[in-house]
Amino acid sequence: MVEEVKLFNTWSSPFGLRIVWALKLKGIQYESVEEDLTNKSPLLLQYNPVYKKVPVLVHNGLPVVESCIILEYIDETWKQNPLLPEDPHKRAAARFWAKFGDDKVISSLWAILTKEGKEREEASVQAIENLKFLEEELKGKRFFGGERIGFLDIAMGWLVNLVPVTEEILGFEVIDKEVFPNLSGWMLEFSGVPAIKENLPPHDKLVAEFRAYLATAPDN
Amino acid sequence: MVEEVKLFNTWSSPFGLRIVWALKLKGIQYESVEEDLTNKSPLLLQYNPVYKKVPVLVHNGLPVVESCIILEYIDETWKQNPLLPEDPHKRAAARFWAKFGDDKVISSLWAILTKEGKEREEASVQAIENLKFLEEELKGKRFFGGERIGFLDIAMGWLVNLVPVTEEILGFEVIDKEVFPNLSGWMLEFSGVPAIKENLPPHDKLVAEFRAYLATAPDN
Repeated sequence: MVEEVKLFNTWSSPFGLRIVWALKLKGIQYESVEEDLTNKSPLLLQYNPVYKKVPVLVHNGLPVVESCIILEYIDETWKQNPLLPEDPHKRAAARFWAKFGDDKVISSLWAILTKEGKEREEASVQAIENLKFLEEELKGKRFFGGERIGFLDIAMGWLVNLVPVTEEILGFEVIDKEVFPNLSGWMLEFSGVPAIKENLPPHDKLVAEFRAYLATAPDN
Repeated sequence: MVEEVKLFNTWSSPFGLRIVWALKLKGIQYESVEEDLTNKSPLLLQYNPVYKKVPVLVHNGLPVVESCIILEYIDETWKQNPLLPEDPHKRAAARFWAKFGDDKVISSLWAILTKEGKEREEASVQAIENLKFLEEELKGKRFFGGERIGFLDIAMGWLVNLVPVTEEILGFEVIDKEVFPNLSGWMLEFSGVPAIKENLPPHDKLVAEFRAYLATAPDN
């Protein structure tokens, strides 16, 4: 059977980017369907009736939703270049920090970008506290996955494009190289890998999109 | 090697209950460490420095945190009576609905219990909308897992003890048997399984704990 792999996505989605990276690292051919989020396609609504969001991976007609769940699906379906380690304890750790990234790190960095004054300061304190856990997790490692890119690298990969965007808009450094040597080193190392670098959305286009978003929804 | 399995938990935690059920269904002997959440043990803080919460499973000295991640760990470590199905698409579906339960269903039911007036009405509408997805997911099935209890049954299992507690405190029905025949049937079926029933916390004790909580934090 010829496999049909479609990815419903938008070019700027940090969650969709996870799936792009995973498919590229696995060497899976797929068709990319670019969604207009102001006018979502009937297929997107059909495939993701609960959240109506990208990314959605459709494999031989069956949809999979939620980016970290899609990563697990990809890893279980195509075994080459495994994303999760074999050891159950290390698998649990990768899943834990990926969830921590989604539940805590994203929101604290988003708050730095969207809040002002005292609220921004509080968000900065929170973000630094959160990022310190990741700094520690990288100790003595090249990637979160060890010697090669794994599940957690892909899950945290949005840092390599969204931190520079945030820093350009704010005009100050969010991830200080002195405070976060491991994390800064990882950002360089990770974004230098061809499959990662070649699929990063253009920096300037992202900055423009974020600026436009912030101009219309400053208190979000 | 003699395996050492410890569960740091509190008797009333719906998340800890998932781990108790999973270990019982797998037939794993473990030591239960009851935590006093008003005076957390140094070991709990050491094992879960990020969230400082129960449940924590400690297996041969290594901690695993976050109840759904612990369930995956248990399923990967002890293969008997598998919780997740084999098919990657069905695994993704089970993970998706478990996450939906944690992200959406818990908060909407909690809001019915803790809010009043218009906010409670809005929470009810939201809860019904959320529960309808689960009702649909159970169509034609005995359990979420099919003919036997699986990952999603355990993840949603808190419904069988916390819905009756909520209904007793509120004095009205939250899950209407006419509107939710599948879900009501599942609650009966699931709570009738010995490993599930024998480990449910006592209903009256839970009601008392919830009442005490609500009396001190009515607007939470």
